[in-house]
Amino acid sequence: MLGIDPGLTRCGVGVVDVAANRSATLVHVGVVRSDPGAAIEIRLATIAAGLRAVIDEHGPGVVAVERVFAQHNRQTVMGTAQASGIALLVAGERGLPAATHTPTEIKAAITGYGAADKRQVQAMVARILRLDELPKPADAADALALALCHAWRGGTPSAASGPLTPAQRAWADAERVGRR
Amino acid sequence: MLGIDPGLTRCGVGVVDVAANRSATLVHVGVVRSDPGAAIEIRLATIAAGLRAVIDEHGPGVVAVERVFAQHNRQTVMGTAQASGIALLVAGERGLPAATHTPTEIKAAITGYGAADKRQVQAMVARILRLDELPKPADAADALALALCHAWRGGTPSAASGPLTPAQRAWADAERVGRR
Repeated sequence: MLGIDPGLTRCGVGVVDVAANRSATLVHVGVVRSDPGAAIEIRLATIAAGLRAVIDEHGPGVVAVERVFAQHNRQTVMGTAQASGIALLVAGERGLPAATHTPTEIKAAITGYGAADKRQVQAMVARILRLDELPKPADAADALALALCHAWRGGTPSAASGPLTPAQRAWADAERVGRR
Repeated sequence: MLGIDPGLTRCGVGVVDVAANRSATLVHVGVVRSDPGAAIEIRLATIAAGLRAVIDEHGPGVVAVERVFAQHNRQTVMGTAQASGIALLVAGERGLPAATHTPTEIKAAITGYGAADKRQVQAMVARILRLDELPKPADAADALALALCHAWRGGTPSAASGPLTPAQRAWADAERVGRR
């Protein structure tokens, strides 16, 4: 499962392996960058090449891309939208199905709470993937959250998974610990 | 000179040959379509393939893409922005410089009047390219207008061209004819 947090200057990429029992393992996390001083057509080609390299190295079966909204951050939204188009294109050209998820869907899937803040999501991603520290930069952590979100929302549900996702169970556990 | 009017369902493409004296000839005009019922990653890959085919057949030296604004047509703007990203990417991957122009810049370059309506622009494009009828559909005509706009704004200016562009001269002529 490859998650892509699209951006013109930094595209977060995260690859996770999700087992049938919904446990998840980190495969790759990183950022594809383009030079803000370069021409737009060069920047987009750089992003496409970087995303293709990740796909070719890790061979994901599905690509999830964060959905971009026109009303947010108007100054950068067109560049973000163009980068998201590149991410979807690269998936299509590699024959991979693509999906998009909104930030609220991602937060809800990871923390059980759609209004969770970025820090809560990052902490949960680190916990789910058994990482010693938070993935950085934030774009990379967002890409991992997206990949996990898609795996759980659209992935193969396990008959043994019960009414709560692993993230929801882990979050509930963390809340219990916090209340002690 | 290749002009691209980006869109997810219809991408207008127009290729014109502009001489040093600024006279222009139609080389190719058409539309690259994608199936509105297909998945977004397939649609974007279809558009990329169609644009690459136009570039490979006609070998333009420059690509001009209409600039997309976040505030217009919010429902379709993200698809249009993604298609514009694909158009710029394809240019970059073919080693072609790309430029963007706003609709107002295009209208002003073609008709001498930034608030000209679509019909005026189309009529002027047909006149400049000595076409017997208006190019259709509108996306294709827009792509031709864009290619002409870029040729005149960014192309090699001729010492003999005087203070008016050929379009402005032709428009002035047409106005004189209309007043008779």
